[in-house]
Amino acid sequence: MKRKSVSTLVGILLIIFLFSSIAVASVEQSQAELFQYHRGQDVFFMFMLVAFLMLFIKRFEWGVCLVTLLTLSVAFPIYILIQKNLFGFNWSIELIIAGVFSAITLIIAAGVIFGHVKISHFIPLSIFFVPAYILNEWFLFTYLEGVADSGGSILVHMFAAYWGWGVIMALQRKEVNEASMDATTHSISFVWLASMLLWVLWPSFTTALLPPELIISGMTTTYLALMASTLVSFLVIKILKGEVDPLVYTYALLSGGVAIGSTVDLVGPGTAWLIGAAAGVISSLCFLYFDGWLREKTNLTDTMGVNNLHGIPGVFGGLMAIPIVGTVQIHAIIGGFIIPLVTGLIAGIIIKTLGKPQILLDDAEIFDLDIDLERTQQR
Amino acid sequence: MKRKSVSTLVGILLIIFLFSSIAVASVEQSQAELFQYHRGQDVFFMFMLVAFLMLFIKRFEWGVCLVTLLTLSVAFPIYILIQKNLFGFNWSIELIIAGVFSAITLIIAAGVIFGHVKISHFIPLSIFFVPAYILNEWFLFTYLEGVADSGGSILVHMFAAYWGWGVIMALQRKEVNEASMDATTHSISFVWLASMLLWVLWPSFTTALLPPELIISGMTTTYLALMASTLVSFLVIKILKGEVDPLVYTYALLSGGVAIGSTVDLVGPGTAWLIGAAAGVISSLCFLYFDGWLREKTNLTDTMGVNNLHGIPGVFGGLMAIPIVGTVQIHAIIGGFIIPLVTGLIAGIIIKTLGKPQILLDDAEIFDLDIDLERTQQR
Amino acid sequence: MKRKSVSTLVGILLIIFLFSSIAVASVEQSQAELFQYHRGQDVFFMFMLVAFLMLFIKRFEWGVCLVTLLTLSVAFPIYILIQKNLFGFNWSIELIIAGVFSAITLIIAAGVIFGHVKISHFIPLSIFFVPAYILNEWFLFTYLEGVADSGGSILVHMFAAYWGWGVIMALQRKEVNEASMDATTHSISFVWLASMLLWVLWPSFTTALLPPELIISGMTTTYLALMASTLVSFLVIKILKGEVDPLVYTYALLSGGVAIGSTVDLVGPGTAWLIGAAAGVISSLCFLYFDGWLREKTNLTDTMGVNNLHGIPGVFGGLMAIPIVGTVQIHAIIGGFIIPLVTGLIAGIIIKTLGKPQILLDDAEIFDLDIDLERTQQR
Repeated sequence: MKRKSVSTLVGILLIIFLFSSIAVASVEQSQAELFQYHRGQDVFFMFMLVAFLMLFIKRFEWGVCLVTLLTLSVAFPIYILIQKNLFGFNWSIELIIAGVFSAITLIIAAGVIFGHVKISHFIPLSIFFVPAYILNEWFLFTYLEGVADSGGSILVHMFAAYWGWGVIMALQRKEVNEASMDATTHSISFVWLASMLLWVLWPSFTTALLPPELIISGMTTTYLALMASTLVSFLVIKILKGEVDPLVYTYALLSGGVAIGSTVDLVGPGTAWLIGAAAGVISSLCFLYFDGWLREKTNLTDTMGVNNLHGIPGVFGGLMAIPIVGTVQIHAIIGGFIIPLVTGLIAGIIIKTLGKPQILLDDAEIFDLDIDLERTQQR
Repeated sequence: MKRKSVSTLVGILLIIFLFSSIAVASVEQSQAELFQYHRGQDVFFMFMLVAFLMLFIKRFEWGVCLVTLLTLSVAFPIYILIQKNLFGFNWSIELIIAGVFSAITLIIAAGVIFGHVKISHFIPLSIFFVPAYILNEWFLFTYLEGVADSGGSILVHMFAAYWGWGVIMALQRKEVNEASMDATTHSISFVWLASMLLWVLWPSFTTALLPPELIISGMTTTYLALMASTLVSFLVIKILKGEVDPLVYTYALLSGGVAIGSTVDLVGPGTAWLIGAAAGVISSLCFLYFDGWLREKTNLTDTMGVNNLHGIPGVFGGLMAIPIVGTVQIHAIIGGFIIPLVTGLIAGIIIKTLGKPQILLDDAEIFDLDIDLERTQQR
Repeated sequence: MKRKSVSTLVGILLIIFLFSSIAVASVEQSQAELFQYHRGQDVFFMFMLVAFLMLFIKRFEWGVCLVTLLTLSVAFPIYILIQKNLFGFNWSIELIIAGVFSAITLIIAAGVIFGHVKISHFIPLSIFFVPAYILNEWFLFTYLEGVADSGGSILVHMFAAYWGWGVIMALQRKEVNEASMDATTHSISFVWLASMLLWVLWPSFTTALLPPELIISGMTTTYLALMASTLVSFLVIKILKGEVDPLVYTYALLSGGVAIGSTVDLVGPGTAWLIGAAAGVISSLCFLYFDGWLREKTNLTDTMGVNNLHGIPGVFGGLMAIPIVGTVQIHAIIGGFIIPLVTGLIAGIIIKTLGKPQILLDDAEIFDLDIDLERTQQR
């Protein structure tokens, strides 16, 4: 019992180690997968809530919901089909999450486009959107190396804003500027509900693609960024305007979540709070001043003000990672601006051939309104 | 060191294997239980959302909520009491989920019955419901062997529709046909909210009783079936009617989730999409044509159109598993139609003795309306 | 191969045991942390829903939402800063949950205070609140030993009610008694939505700080207590009043969740049901009779009736643990009444120096109302 025994012992220890490792790995794998189940579901939940964030136009509440459902049902399967058949991905919870990420980007982009196209045009728009989104995804994470964007400042928020702007720049529908957008107490209360629940679910979005051990810290940075933008955007709006426009505040308060997207896993709680606070200032100023200036210059209406919440705060969030990951981040931001703008322009040019909407931002375009007591009475 | 050592080695390896297995099994057990915690909560969440899916009658919004809460609070404890005391089940997360499954079936059935009975009658109705539901559960999964219905096409959706129909057939309250059901923009927006969030949570329902390793694939098939019915029911309604009735669409779009119930763990994503698409066609046609025909023939009103979303698409979903599991599925569907109908008829006959409602589909039946500014002004 | 072999064997077995244990422990640790992620998120979700539970005053819907967001964004970071810097806690999911517990206590307390102060005063109030809450937390769980309150009957519900009452007793603003609180069908439907979803999420609150193995049984006791209060409060209100005031019922039905807080992990399902039933009786009687008596005696308005849902049922819940843990529980209840009352009084005295609100319970205080079609028309 000398060398032989030792080698036997070593062998046994290796086997123990192997077994334990496999056991732990398999449990961790299945555990992580199950955990991702609710994670993925949260992102679907947020997708639906984006609709309610845009529900303030009383006449157009149902139209927003309809477009939300149609874009998901068209874009998601196309995204999966392309990724499976062209790029050889298998079904997995990660693929499902990547798919709903693409859909959530599309419904945010729709916020720019509402009123510029017919409701049924969102079906072809969804078809054009997916390849453009996949191109951008490839550019950011395969072509470039080392881009920081786990929480989607560039991938989701910037793409949504500038793809949507590409579409409306191609369409040049100035009549949207005059469309009435009447709100009511309750239609805006739906917006508060959506904003507050999106706030709660936001860490599920920013940490969706992080490894398990980074999730709690990602939750921390995301919530702190949101708390900062919630507080600071209130102060900015109140100080600058004296009174608060709920349709500015319910949006601007989320800007911390947008801006923390690129650095969610790279900064500590204090820095996260500062990024959120800065985003709150930037987004509020965009809503209060830049939005009007841009509308004047372009003569185009970004219907839901997507640029003010997702566009500029998305760029700002992307920039925040430059000190950490270097110049590749600059390339990512530039590409993440040009790719959506150009592909959006192309999509807009094609959609333009399908004709104009006759009724803007009004459920009457597609719904049977006879069932609505109040609307029937108003006629 | 030959045979002895070998046997020692084998012994040690067996012990390693045993320890690892026990460790993994115990972790997997507790992990699965914790995972089921949120799963079960999701089903409670869906239970409450069913109320909001039926909130379109402005005058009756609070009544629907009240009935929802009362049925759960009566049916769930009775279900547990029977299963524990008569059949020896212990408290577990599975029993809790089974209990809320019974409650969700009851609240769907209530959709047929609203207006046919007084609000307080839903308390005795809940008491009659539970034994009938347990009988059906026993028939499908203990008496029969090999029935495919993990996601409840037969157990939940068919039972709900035909038990409800049994009740209203016994009651024969034709006055419901004339009851006014005025809706408003916002009351219908609550329906959109409920439909869209039920959509998101649906996989938690269809996969609630599946083993962990089938949950992600069950999520996939469920979402794809829902995407198909969401897209296809829109197209069917738009093409056939020119305009979309939101109270048809918000319901029909969910039919893919109903129909995938029997095959959620048995088909691939492509087949799931096709089942959902077919369900979208069937449910839309039921709402647009069959519903009126059935009302004419029976002179009875299925208040929320439960047969169109849960009944016929539930039957269709059950049928889809016949090629996979064989004729037992046919027996399940026949029994799953007769048992609720007969037990519902009996419940209806008893309830009939308690008297008619004087005020139909109106919160005034039971609520203090003086606190409602608008209603007070309208008087 | 005798003694040596045996000791080798024992050694190997110990190593196996060690490896397995470490592996299991590490998986269980990370598993528990990930599980707590959704748990914590649920509590944030409930925090937001508390706003919607208080959304019935149509003119003040947005104000409630704004205060909700501001209190969270101010109180949570202060709570964390104090716990980290003064008491040396590290960031963890438990600390995050403890932080949102403090915020949820504050927003419940705000329900007493609405109308008594300006909206912007909730920012300094949040700052005064946190140290008081931490003092109470220390008193209950560090100074005292063996207090039963896993689900927060004393820590959260009692503290919220009596801190809020401390504030309004210091302020002595009798004008709130005359403030109009007009509701509408839909504003109250938001309350139903909030109450029903709080109901569903409640076990995530009561079991948030329990070890994993007690979570399913905690879910059971919580749901049964809620079912009991849901049923019994309906019966009490209906029998005593003939008709149901939705703003009593939507609150009183939750009282079982409040009262089970101290015994969630200590009683069985049957006892939990009884505690919930008694809480339903107590809370209903408080809303129907005690609330008016207290208003008459104090000439002060508890705006949302917090004492009726959280105060008295919280005391009752705390008392229920006396037979189990002994007299320490009595000390906890006495301290848990005096500490919030005194610290609330101090906060109120300071806030009083900041001046009175000019417009009570009205969004016009701070919001731009021109965007609201209906309000603009009513002018």
